[in-house]
Amino acid sequence: MNPMLQTPLLDQVIYPDDLRKLDDKDMPQLAAELRAEMVDAVSKTGGHLGAGLGVVELTIAVHKVFNTPYDRVIFDVGHQCYPHKILTGRRDRIRTLRQEGGLSGFTRRAESEYDPFGAAHSSTSISAGLGMAVAAEMDESKRNVIAIIGDGALSGGMAFEALNNAGSLDARLIVILNDNDMSIAPPTGAMSAYLARLASGRTYLGFREIGKKLTAYLGKNIDRAITRAVEHARGYVTGGTLFEELGFYHIGPIDGHSFEHLLPVLRNVRDNGNGPVLIHIVTQKGKGYAPAEAAADKYHGVNKFDVITGAQAKAKPNAPAYTSVFAEALIEEARHDPKIVGITAAMPTGTGLDKFAEVFPKRIFDVGIAEQHGITFAAGLAAEGYKPFAAIYSTFLQRAYDQVVHDVAIQSLPVRFAIDRAGYVGADGPTHAGSFDTTYLATLPGFVVMAAADEAELKHMVRTAAAYDDGPISFRYPRGEGVGVEMPARGEILEIGKGRVVKQGTKVALLSFGTRLADCLMAAEDLDAAGLSTTVADARFAKPLDIDLIRQLARNHEVLLTVEEGAIGGFGAHVLHFLAHEGLLDGRLKVRPLVMPDLFIEQAKPETMNAMAGLDRKGIVSTVFQMLGQTEAAIGL
Amino acid sequence: MNPMLQTPLLDQVIYPDDLRKLDDKDMPQLAAELRAEMVDAVSKTGGHLGAGLGVVELTIAVHKVFNTPYDRVIFDVGHQCYPHKILTGRRDRIRTLRQEGGLSGFTRRAESEYDPFGAAHSSTSISAGLGMAVAAEMDESKRNVIAIIGDGALSGGMAFEALNNAGSLDARLIVILNDNDMSIAPPTGAMSAYLARLASGRTYLGFREIGKKLTAYLGKNIDRAITRAVEHARGYVTGGTLFEELGFYHIGPIDGHSFEHLLPVLRNVRDNGNGPVLIHIVTQKGKGYAPAEAAADKYHGVNKFDVITGAQAKAKPNAPAYTSVFAEALIEEARHDPKIVGITAAMPTGTGLDKFAEVFPKRIFDVGIAEQHGITFAAGLAAEGYKPFAAIYSTFLQRAYDQVVHDVAIQSLPVRFAIDRAGYVGADGPTHAGSFDTTYLATLPGFVVMAAADEAELKHMVRTAAAYDDGPISFRYPRGEGVGVEMPARGEILEIGKGRVVKQGTKVALLSFGTRLADCLMAAEDLDAAGLSTTVADARFAKPLDIDLIRQLARNHEVLLTVEEGAIGGFGAHVLHFLAHEGLLDGRLKVRPLVMPDLFIEQAKPETMNAMAGLDRKGIVSTVFQMLGQTEAAIGL
Repeated sequence: MNPMLQTPLLDQVIYPDDLRKLDDKDMPQLAAELRAEMVDAVSKTGGHLGAGLGVVELTIAVHKVFNTPYDRVIFDVGHQCYPHKILTGRRDRIRTLRQEGGLSGFTRRAESEYDPFGAAHSSTSISAGLGMAVAAEMDESKRNVIAIIGDGALSGGMAFEALNNAGSLDARLIVILNDNDMSIAPPTGAMSAYLARLASGRTYLGFREIGKKLTAYLGKNIDRAITRAVEHARGYVTGGTLFEELGFYHIGPIDGHSFEHLLPVLRNVRDNGNGPVLIHIVTQKGKGYAPAEAAADKYHGVNKFDVITGAQAKAKPNAPAYTSVFAEALIEEARHDPKIVGITAAMPTGTGLDKFAEVFPKRIFDVGIAEQHGITFAAGLAAEGYKPFAAIYSTFLQRAYDQVVHDVAIQSLPVRFAIDRAGYVGADGPTHAGSFDTTYLATLPGFVVMAAADEAELKHMVRTAAAYDDGPISFRYPRGEGVGVEMPARGEILEIGKGRVVKQGTKVALLSFGTRLADCLMAAEDLDAAGLSTTVADARFAKPLDIDLIRQLARNHEVLLTVEEGAIGGFGAHVLHFLAHEGLLDGRLKVRPLVMPDLFIEQAKPETMNAMAGLDRKGIVSTVFQMLGQTEAAIGL
Repeated sequence: MNPMLQTPLLDQVIYPDDLRKLDDKDMPQLAAELRAEMVDAVSKTGGHLGAGLGVVELTIAVHKVFNTPYDRVIFDVGHQCYPHKILTGRRDRIRTLRQEGGLSGFTRRAESEYDPFGAAHSSTSISAGLGMAVAAEMDESKRNVIAIIGDGALSGGMAFEALNNAGSLDARLIVILNDNDMSIAPPTGAMSAYLARLASGRTYLGFREIGKKLTAYLGKNIDRAITRAVEHARGYVTGGTLFEELGFYHIGPIDGHSFEHLLPVLRNVRDNGNGPVLIHIVTQKGKGYAPAEAAADKYHGVNKFDVITGAQAKAKPNAPAYTSVFAEALIEEARHDPKIVGITAAMPTGTGLDKFAEVFPKRIFDVGIAEQHGITFAAGLAAEGYKPFAAIYSTFLQRAYDQVVHDVAIQSLPVRFAIDRAGYVGADGPTHAGSFDTTYLATLPGFVVMAAADEAELKHMVRTAAAYDDGPISFRYPRGEGVGVEMPARGEILEIGKGRVVKQGTKVALLSFGTRLADCLMAAEDLDAAGLSTTVADARFAKPLDIDLIRQLARNHEVLLTVEEGAIGGFGAHVLHFLAHEGLLDGRLKVRPLVMPDLFIEQAKPETMNAMAGLDRKGIVSTVFQMLGQTEAAIGL
C-alpha cells in the first residue's frame, strides 16, 4: 500500500457490513478514498481502470443499501469490479490483481461469496440474475438480486433475450443499467443512440420526479396487476420507453455519481418493489481521475502507470504484435482486392481493425457486442461475393458457434475467420483463454483451419484466406508479440492443406500447429544435443491435414509428437484419427498428442501457463524422453 | 399431382416472372389454388404445414412486387417456405419434400437461385439480409433485400442484435414481421405480449392511414436526415414503437391476408424507400385449411394426413420415443427431488417438457427461442442450489456454446444438459443433425458427457444427472423410438466414468458410445459367425473415460473399434488420445475410430444416413474385415 495514501474511512471498511455502519453523509468521502485506492493499485498492476472509476458511487450505494452477500449483486463483464473487490474483504490483495496466484481481474465465484456469479464475457448478468431471482421466489425468500449492466453490453442479444423473458415473469429482479455511452470502444447501434436520446432529452430526474416514478412502480396498496395494466395502457397511449414495452418498470435516468439520488431510489426499490425493474443511471467512465477522464478510451485497460501524470509504462516490444501484423496484412490485401471488408464485434482496437478503418472507413463494420449477428452478417456479405474477414477473439467466437455451423459451414460460404488471442492469454485468465477453437471448427465439414507459427506465417495466411473462395477458412494467432522473424513485404498464397518441414532429423518428429513451433525448435536443439535427431514440422493446417507430410513423419521416425496450444479434440485428434485409419499406428511408431491439460488454468504469464501445460520446450523434451524410456538425468539434462 | 385438384391459374405460374404477368385481381384465386396445392402435397409427404398456410398471400405479394431472384427474399427459419418453393420452379418436385433426394424442407442456396440464404434455425434472416443490403449499397445497386421473420423468431437475441445494427445503418433493408402470435408453441416473453398489444390496440390500418404512414416514411422530396430527425423527435415526445426506437420505420399492423393492403404497401416501399423499414403484418397460422385452423398447434408439423378430414396418419411405435422416456424419467426424479426444474427454449412439445409442465407447472421455464439466455438462466438457478435440466436439441445447443463454456463449465455449475435429437435426424436434414455436441462438450474441462445406448440407459442417465452435483453433466439421445428394451420403474445411478461390457468376446472389441450399440451387437453376430469372436462394450461416458475398460479392451483384443453417431473430435478422439498417452498403440492393437464422415449429409431416413456414414451393422463389419485384411466375400458374407 502507498504510505502517501490517506484513507481513514476506507480503512474502517473491510466488509460491506462495516460500510453499512457508516453515515450516508460520509459516502462522498468514502468514494474519494476508494477511487484513490483503486487508482494507486491499478497503477502498480495494470488492468481495467476506467470502468471501475465510473461505478465507485454505485458500488458503494449497492453494498450500503443491500444485504450482500445474502442479496446477490452481479456485475456484467466484470471489468468494473475492482471497487467491489476492495469493499468485500479483498483490499489486502488488490495489488495482486491479474497476477499469478492473485485476485482475478473479474468476479469469480471461487474467490468470494460476494461474487455470486462470475463474469468476463459480456451480457450474461440479466440471465444469471433472473435465474437467481426465480430461485429466490421458489425458495419464498425475500432475497434481492441486482444485475449491473453497461449500455454496451445491452447490444448483446442474450441481454435482450433475458429482458424479454424477465419482462414476462414476476420475479424480483433489479437491473441497473449503467449508461456511460462507452463500453470498450464507443458503442454503435440503435440502442446506444436510443439511450443517448433518453439521457439527453430527459434531464436527470429531480427528487419529486423520482418520487413519482417510484410511486407508479411501487403502487403500494394497489393490486400489482391493475397497476401494470394501467401502466401498460398509459405506455400504449403515450408511448413508454423500450424497457417499459418489454415489461420492466423503468426508473431514470438518474445521476449515477450522486448518493442523494442513488440511495433513496435503491432503498425504495429494496423495500417495496416486487417485479422486474430497470434503474437507468448515467455515469462517466474514468470519473474522478483526470488523466482517465481526458483519455479517448477513458483508461479502459491500462499498463502500469504514474499516478500523478497518468503516463503509462510502455512495454518495449521485440517484435510486432500479431494483432498489428494481421491489421497491416489485411490492409495490404484490401488494397489489391476491393471485395475485402472487415467485421468486428465492438473490438476495433483489440483486433487491429481500427487501423483498417483508418484506411478503408467504408469497408469496416462494427456490429456491436453481437458476435452472432456479426457472423451471419458476414455470411450475407459472402453470399453476395464480398470477402468478409471477421476478426474475433477465439473465446468470443464461441458465442457465434451456431452461426458458424448453420450459416457459414453448411452453406459453404467463404467467410474468413481471423481468430486472435488463440491459446493462453495471461492476465485475463481462463475466461479469455482461446482453448477450444481448433476443436470446434475442425470438426465442421468443409472448413479450412489454419494456425500461424509466427508473424510471417500470419501474413501468408491473411493472403491465403483472401485468395481462397471455396468455403470458410480460419487462421488463429496468439496474443502478444511475434518471434521476430524477417517479414515479407506481402504474404504468399499457401497451398491449402500443405505443411512444411522446418528442420530435418531422423528419429524424433515434432509436428507443431501454431506458435508452439518456437518451443519445438528449441526442444529439438536439446534433443539433438542428447543424440536424438529431431525433425520439426509446421503443420499450418489442422484441416485439411497434410497427409503426405504426416505419412512421411510417421514412417521415417520412431517418435511423433503433435504440439498445439489448444484443448483436446483438435489438431492432435485429427492426426491420430488419420494415423488410425491409415493403419500407421503399427507399433513401430510411438505417438503422443500434446494439448492443453484438462483444466482451466488461472491467470499467469502465458509462458508460465504453457509450462504448466507441458507445452513448452521443457515439457516437449520430457515427453520425448519419457516415450523413449529415458530420463533426462541419464543424458545429463 | 392430384387429378381432382383444379389449379388453372397456378398452372400458369412456373416462375415468379409468370406471376408478375397476372392481374392483381387474380391474386386471391391464385392464393386459393396455392393453398390447395400445398395442402395436397404435404398430405402426401408430411412436413410443416401451418406456417406455410399463413404466408400464402405474403409469398405471392412479395414475388409479385419484387424482382426475384435479383431482389433477395430471405425466409427466417424456413419452415414457411413451401408456397415459395411452389412459385419458384419447384412445384414439379414439391411432393418430394423432405424425402431422400428430394427438396429440402427449408430454403437452401444449393437448391435454387430463389433461395439466396438458407435457413432452418431461427432468427438469422435480418443479419443475413443486412449483410446483403450492405453489399447492394457497396455495389451501388438498387437491389431490394427482404427478410421475412415471425414474431417467435424475434425472441432470439441475434434478431435483436441485427435490428440494433440495422437501425444505425442506412441500408435499404425491408423486414417483414409476420406476426401470427405463434411460432412452434405459443410464444412467451414480453416482446410477444408487446406485439399483441400493438396488434389489438391498433386496428388494422385503413388505406388512408397506410398512406399517411408511407408518406411519413418516404418523405419523397424531403431530405431523409431531416425526416428522420423529425420522426425521432416525434417518437421521443409521443413515444414511438419499439422498432422506431431502434431506428426502423414501422408500418403496420397490416392484414397479411389482404392483397389490397399488401400490394400497395410493398410497391411503395420498393419504389421509394431508402432506409431500414419494418412492415408489421398480422396473419393466421394454418389459414384457409379448416383442420389446421382448428388445431391447437395449427398443424405446425404434420405426418401424412387425409385432406378432407385432416386426420393424420399415426405411426405405430414399436417402442417409446426417447423424448417421452426422458420426460417420464424427469417427472419421476422430480417427484423425489423438489430442486429439479426444467428449462426449454420454446420447444416444450419437442423436448417432452410439456408433460413435465402438466405435473409441475411451477417448475418449468420456457425462455423463448433464446438458448443463450436459457443456459445462463439455468446456471443462475444452479448457483442457488437448484437442479436445472436444460432440454435442448443437439443442433440448437450450438447457439449457447459460449454460455456452456463461460457460465457453466468455467464455474463448474451443475447444469444438466438433456441433449435430444443427437445424431442424424432424418427428414430435417443437415441443419438439424446433432453431429457436434460430443466434440464441443467433451473438450471442456470438468464436463461429464454421457450418451444413452437405449431407452433404459436414458432413464439411468436422467437419474444419474439428478444425483450428480459436482459440475456440468450432459446426456445425449437420438430422435425417434427406443429399441424396445425392458424398462426399469426408475433409473439407477450410474457410476461416473464407468462403461459396461455387454457381450464378451476375444478377438474384436466394439466400443460404442450411444445408440449405435444396437448395430454393434448385430455386427458382433456377423463377426462371431465369421469366426471373429467379438466383445461389445457400451462406454456410457465420453468424459470421464472408463480407462480401465479401455485398457482391458486394448490389451485383450486384436482389433478395437470405437463407434459413435457424431463428428470427429469426440468420443473416438478421446479414446485415441488416452491410448496414445498410455503407450497402448503398440502395434499389437489395430484401432479405428468410426465417426460421421466429413460432410453434411442431406435428408434421408436416419438408418440410410447411418449406412451412408458406415456407422451401421454392415459398415462396422466391413471395417473390421478391412482392418484384418479379409474380404467379406472370403468368409461368405
